[in-house]
Amino acid sequence: MINTFRSKGPQKIFHWALSNGLAMYPTNFKPELATVAPITLFPTPLPETAFQDAIDVQTVYNALYANIAQNKNGWLAEETEKLASSDPDFTGRLWSLYKRAKQHGICQNLSLGVFRSDYLINADDNQIKQVEFNTVSVSFGGLSTKVGELHDYLNKSGSYTDNGDAFYDQDIPISQSAELLADGLAEAIGQYQSADTNKKPIVAFIVQNGERNVFDQSVLSINLLTKHNIKSVRLTIHEIHSATRLDSNNNRLFLKSSGQEIGLVYFRAGYSPSDFVSEQDWENRLTLEVSYAIKAPNLLTQLSGTKKIQQLLTNPTTLRKFLPNDDSLSLLVPTFVKIYPLDFSELGEVGRKLAFEEPENFVLKPQREGGGNNIYKKDIPGFLESIGQDEWNAYILMELINPKPTEENVVIKGQELFSVPISSELGIFGTVLFDEDKIYSNNQAGWLLRSKFNTSNEGGVAAGFGCVDSIILY
Amino acid sequence: MINTFRSKGPQKIFHWALSNGLAMYPTNFKPELATVAPITLFPTPLPETAFQDAIDVQTVYNALYANIAQNKNGWLAEETEKLASSDPDFTGRLWSLYKRAKQHGICQNLSLGVFRSDYLINADDNQIKQVEFNTVSVSFGGLSTKVGELHDYLNKSGSYTDNGDAFYDQDIPISQSAELLADGLAEAIGQYQSADTNKKPIVAFIVQNGERNVFDQSVLSINLLTKHNIKSVRLTIHEIHSATRLDSNNNRLFLKSSGQEIGLVYFRAGYSPSDFVSEQDWENRLTLEVSYAIKAPNLLTQLSGTKKIQQLLTNPTTLRKFLPNDDSLSLLVPTFVKIYPLDFSELGEVGRKLAFEEPENFVLKPQREGGGNNIYKKDIPGFLESIGQDEWNAYILMELINPKPTEENVVIKGQELFSVPISSELGIFGTVLFDEDKIYSNNQAGWLLRSKFNTSNEGGVAAGFGCVDSIILY
Repeated sequence: MINTFRSKGPQKIFHWALSNGLAMYPTNFKPELATVAPITLFPTPLPETAFQDAIDVQTVYNALYANIAQNKNGWLAEETEKLASSDPDFTGRLWSLYKRAKQHGICQNLSLGVFRSDYLINADDNQIKQVEFNTVSVSFGGLSTKVGELHDYLNKSGSYTDNGDAFYDQDIPISQSAELLADGLAEAIGQYQSADTNKKPIVAFIVQNGERNVFDQSVLSINLLTKHNIKSVRLTIHEIHSATRLDSNNNRLFLKSSGQEIGLVYFRAGYSPSDFVSEQDWENRLTLEVSYAIKAPNLLTQLSGTKKIQQLLTNPTTLRKFLPNDDSLSLLVPTFVKIYPLDFSELGEVGRKLAFEEPENFVLKPQREGGGNNIYKKDIPGFLESIGQDEWNAYILMELINPKPTEENVVIKGQELFSVPISSELGIFGTVLFDEDKIYSNNQAGWLLRSKFNTSNEGGVAAGFGCVDSIILY
Repeated sequence: MINTFRSKGPQKIFHWALSNGLAMYPTNFKPELATVAPITLFPTPLPETAFQDAIDVQTVYNALYANIAQNKNGWLAEETEKLASSDPDFTGRLWSLYKRAKQHGICQNLSLGVFRSDYLINADDNQIKQVEFNTVSVSFGGLSTKVGELHDYLNKSGSYTDNGDAFYDQDIPISQSAELLADGLAEAIGQYQSADTNKKPIVAFIVQNGERNVFDQSVLSINLLTKHNIKSVRLTIHEIHSATRLDSNNNRLFLKSSGQEIGLVYFRAGYSPSDFVSEQDWENRLTLEVSYAIKAPNLLTQLSGTKKIQQLLTNPTTLRKFLPNDDSLSLLVPTFVKIYPLDFSELGEVGRKLAFEEPENFVLKPQREGGGNNIYKKDIPGFLESIGQDEWNAYILMELINPKPTEENVVIKGQELFSVPISSELGIFGTVLFDEDKIYSNNQAGWLLRSKFNTSNEGGVAAGFGCVDSIILY
């Protein structure tokens, strides 16, 4: 069947994709031109039990991170304070921004978590193992829905076989993330009280200049309007001071041009220091934080997503502080791999030993995700020796997960088809609305399968973010 | 409000359009790249009575042309035979192809008309006046739906005003043509009897190589599958002999690659001689005509759409032969403008006189539509003198309709916004399934508003096909 696509070219796929916005802006950006997003030709088979485990545990993870972001007993603050010095350029700046916000007074108690928990499936036992938990700017919820629809369309249209019949005897599951994420945003803004109760507040999407993944975002703003009658606006962090007005009496945030009140600030930017190009940008982030608008996420929620927190949660005593429920723990704990610090704690000693004695079982990760910054296996000792020991605290040592590569799928990038083994990372979206005391809603919000060329080390770094895939269960 | 778009650029429009396939292939074709279709920024105001008149008369027009295509008393054959000599390159070739098909034997009695009747609205009295009736390859039914959705989205999202409120106090009407045209195709193939009744027949879209308006077509094939579970394939006229097989026993048409039976041949090509580049292409058209597959349209139905037939129908006696019903006539006749032949008939004498004495009230049209071939007003006498009188029969002289230009709309082409007066042509789609004796279904199938720069003569020739617009009723 691949040959059919090879002979005619993936015309049918391109037509569907461009007809339905399964697209990105090309690197050679023009505002009126879109290119097909990198996708797979087929859905990738996943074991049903593993998939179901990931779905089932999502609301537990949502609750866990909401509890952490509530900063009970000051634990998140304490740990982030320590971490700030190892990553002064980003974690440190966000943290000092939070402290300034607190000094100013934080008037909005509600926070929206729009999360994605990412897993690899262990080849040996088909267990899901968490790679990371993302608390800010999680993406591809819009395109994930569309790639599932594309694959289901191709299957039902008989494109996967030579005789025009369907190839899979089941519907291809379609992630409802494009709707569910919009539902999550709608739920948050539904809780917002406008100054003028006759006027509905709007959502501000905080986006990057030159963002290529716009159509993944526009699905959400379109669904917000068509399903919930909620308007939205796109703003960069660079224009907050010029495009919005913070009312000094009540800290309410308004769009200058229209006078509309911004009830929810949804971050699809601000997850990396490169998003802040001037001091004004940091001040703008502060403005948003102290505003009465609900943030998705606020700074504490964003800061709960560091690798350090992920590592600390593997300590059962710590974990139990935030998740006392045994049933919840029994779902959550099996998704952990071993994670070690490299500091001078007892566990840090173990980590430092393992890093040099068994590096082949580990990946070394900096606090910040960023793509291309992970150090794998035998490269770990040399790397650690090359930096000062005082910097080691900025890294965690994480047990490698060994997913089974998929051999039969095909990656489509531009006009090229790649029949190479891929490895896939399953992400489950979740939305959780909470304040310091209480969780108001907590939902699983669909999924994403991202697949990467299974080459050039486990990270598939060379392949960039990989491509958007869908699933078929077995 | 236009200034808002000017300052930020039509970003929101581009995002929606590319996220929803309101797109075309760019002139610099790459299969994975789409550009925003030429559209208007706002819906164009139309008088409600005129719009409703056009909607109401569509099934009458459908029935009229079905009746003509049934070739009752051989009238269509007789007139087309005469016309063939004036347009030997196209009408003549289609006609001789029909005669060969008849000789071979035409085994499929059903024919599907997928029509579009195009009108201008007279400025003086707001009456609709028919420009032409299209019987083959009518386009923009898919994108028409999407431009209505876009304008409704922009309105509801507050993009048309500075304060973020909706600008129009009514929903912007959305043409359901994308669904209704697919419904029409589905109804036809639903009547088709497969050789193997366990296998559903498929639809073949006959398309042009290098077609830029693909996404207008793909909406229909997607709706066919998702709404009706009907599969389709895209074929060019050039590959019929290599990609399909005609069973010589029963004239059934099969796709070679999959063995699927083609039950409906839907032409989105073959309306111009340039679509036939070799003798093989003409043979391929013949193969389709003699096959058992239902054609949308068959040759007689296509040939009923010539300008000559349109002119002849303005004769009440002729018209009444095909539409004896007084109620129907009372809807239809007011949509006619005066059309004269230039032949040696009595009416032809009048036409020849008017062409030279009052050319400013007329447009001279060749039998074939083609864009850029119409002769306007004072250019008519000189043009007629420049060709032989024996060629005059290939033209009709049509009373000019004077629509009121719209001053306030804005045309978006690529990144450019044009704030120039436009004139708009309203097209109403219709589908009608019939055989030699009977009409089985007859439906109005949505609408299209195409707008053109109101410059360079009435035809707006320089503007190409213009752009896709939507309507707001007053």
